[in-house]
Amino acid sequence: MIKVGILGYGNLGRGVEAAVKMNSDIELKAVYTRRDPSTLTIKTDGVPVKSTDELDKGQEDIDVLIICGGSATDLPEMTPKYAALYNVIDSFDTHANIPVHFENVDKAAKAAGKIGIISCGWDPGMFSLNRLYASAVLPNGKDYTFWGKGVSQGHSDAVRRIDGVIDCRQYTIPVPAALDRVRNGENPELSTREKHTRECFVVAEEGADLARIENEIKTMPNYFSDYDTTVHFISADEMKRDHSGLPHGGSVIYSGETSDGTKHVIEYSLKLDSNPEFTGSVIVAYARAAARLNKEGKTGAMTVFDIAPAYLSAKSGEELRAHCL
Amino acid sequence: MIKVGILGYGNLGRGVEAAVKMNSDIELKAVYTRRDPSTLTIKTDGVPVKSTDELDKGQEDIDVLIICGGSATDLPEMTPKYAALYNVIDSFDTHANIPVHFENVDKAAKAAGKIGIISCGWDPGMFSLNRLYASAVLPNGKDYTFWGKGVSQGHSDAVRRIDGVIDCRQYTIPVPAALDRVRNGENPELSTREKHTRECFVVAEEGADLARIENEIKTMPNYFSDYDTTVHFISADEMKRDHSGLPHGGSVIYSGETSDGTKHVIEYSLKLDSNPEFTGSVIVAYARAAARLNKEGKTGAMTVFDIAPAYLSAKSGEELRAHCL
Repeated sequence: MIKVGILGYGNLGRGVEAAVKMNSDIELKAVYTRRDPSTLTIKTDGVPVKSTDELDKGQEDIDVLIICGGSATDLPEMTPKYAALYNVIDSFDTHANIPVHFENVDKAAKAAGKIGIISCGWDPGMFSLNRLYASAVLPNGKDYTFWGKGVSQGHSDAVRRIDGVIDCRQYTIPVPAALDRVRNGENPELSTREKHTRECFVVAEEGADLARIENEIKTMPNYFSDYDTTVHFISADEMKRDHSGLPHGGSVIYSGETSDGTKHVIEYSLKLDSNPEFTGSVIVAYARAAARLNKEGKTGAMTVFDIAPAYLSAKSGEELRAHCL
Repeated sequence: MIKVGILGYGNLGRGVEAAVKMNSDIELKAVYTRRDPSTLTIKTDGVPVKSTDELDKGQEDIDVLIICGGSATDLPEMTPKYAALYNVIDSFDTHANIPVHFENVDKAAKAAGKIGIISCGWDPGMFSLNRLYASAVLPNGKDYTFWGKGVSQGHSDAVRRIDGVIDCRQYTIPVPAALDRVRNGENPELSTREKHTRECFVVAEEGADLARIENEIKTMPNYFSDYDTTVHFISADEMKRDHSGLPHGGSVIYSGETSDGTKHVIEYSLKLDSNPEFTGSVIVAYARAAARLNKEGKTGAMTVFDIAPAYLSAKSGEELRAHCL
């Protein structure tokens, strides 16, 4: 059995917990929280909730610590800190800061003889793998990533910060015409606006100025101003009834040539009922890899690029060759 | 520069040759043939065509030998034989015999301190990878592989052996209703007939009994009798005009649950203008990996499952993390 701990019990932590249950060779040993552990009830019977103070002692009986924190402030600090004590894995997704994060985790993990897998999930993660495989196989080509239809939690949060907004769910939606052109192998140049539209379902305070809220959303820099955005005002009941899930997905489409006019299109696509449960599932498979690789003596920071696929599976090499090859 | 040799100059050998040209860090050193080398003209200027007698001496200046033979009789003999002399890679695809082939190549390669990558291409190959990744991430699920629309060379050859047939091109076509059900995450049980149809374009000898030919095709065991097959008789000119390419493709679709009723669908699909050029491109990327892994001291047989993705790319770890992650 591979023993894992979960640090942080938000959407992702709960997704990891659900994913662990699907893997009979992986055992959840504890959930760690910075809050008072007595205030937290988890879904897995018989598994303790512990304070991060326990974790900090470095004596917890776990093979891998799965760190479910935010990329903005939690992970840059937490992942190197715990890589000095345990094998760790995170889903760090602030793209521009990956080199620094990788270095920090690498230094801490190597010094401790541990492994730290960073930026694991579906993007970065499975989508990254597909960009790499496709570009290695067809060096003369171009990749496109489309997200959605799905809920962007970052954009939903941004709208919630607007005065008069009680709740929001923001869907990112690929533009069908752009998808068609890319799938056709046309390799078009596409602006931000041409690739995705954004749709917001907003619960506003009673008496709020809806026109102002709509305008503040549509003109919000970085988040919405470069997109065609639709805003719908709905009731709290409608929000609960129609928008309580966190579906997501998208496609990586790569098209390239092998000789003049001979084209190939590779597409990897995901349709996910629950973004956190799928992300958690990817992380759990790579946690298995982390435990195995460390047992073989490997140390330091790694990404999905550095790990041979067989390490992710509970099946043996013979079984994989017989059933998947 | 990574120096490669190509053994065998049929469709696949020419596909590998085209793929090498797309990779500036890979150099084609020679094409090897069992025929008289003077009878063979290749497309790459300045590259010699040599007899396999030269190869057999074990002194050729190549990092990897790419073996482009048939799975029925060539590869079971050639790959172990040359793995005792060079790093090798093949596209062995007789599924039931993979365990034996793997063992034979492993033994020869290990004894010689070489690497032998077997069963490389898109199926087995990229499709296998996607079956593995998906089943590792979502252990509670099911995979489906659809082939086509594309030319099956094995089925085309089988029809050509019928008395009165001059030429044939057989297209394998996925059944749209089956694709839809699988993409919906229904996880249906599908018979062979429900998954694919077959379409044959046949050039017959003048005066041949077309009804008999059509019947012989449709009732041919293993190849056609389990499928709904359509047969079109066309002229040699129409064959040349409309069916001279070797397009192919298909999809691996995996659907699985992470909790009760929470479904995820993963799809990897290929649309290929040229089956041999794409297969050759996958092989060349893995030839790069073979050269690198052997330089690191790794030996023995491997498949796509055993090789970390970063080894396939000409880019450095830093570049990959910056641009693909």
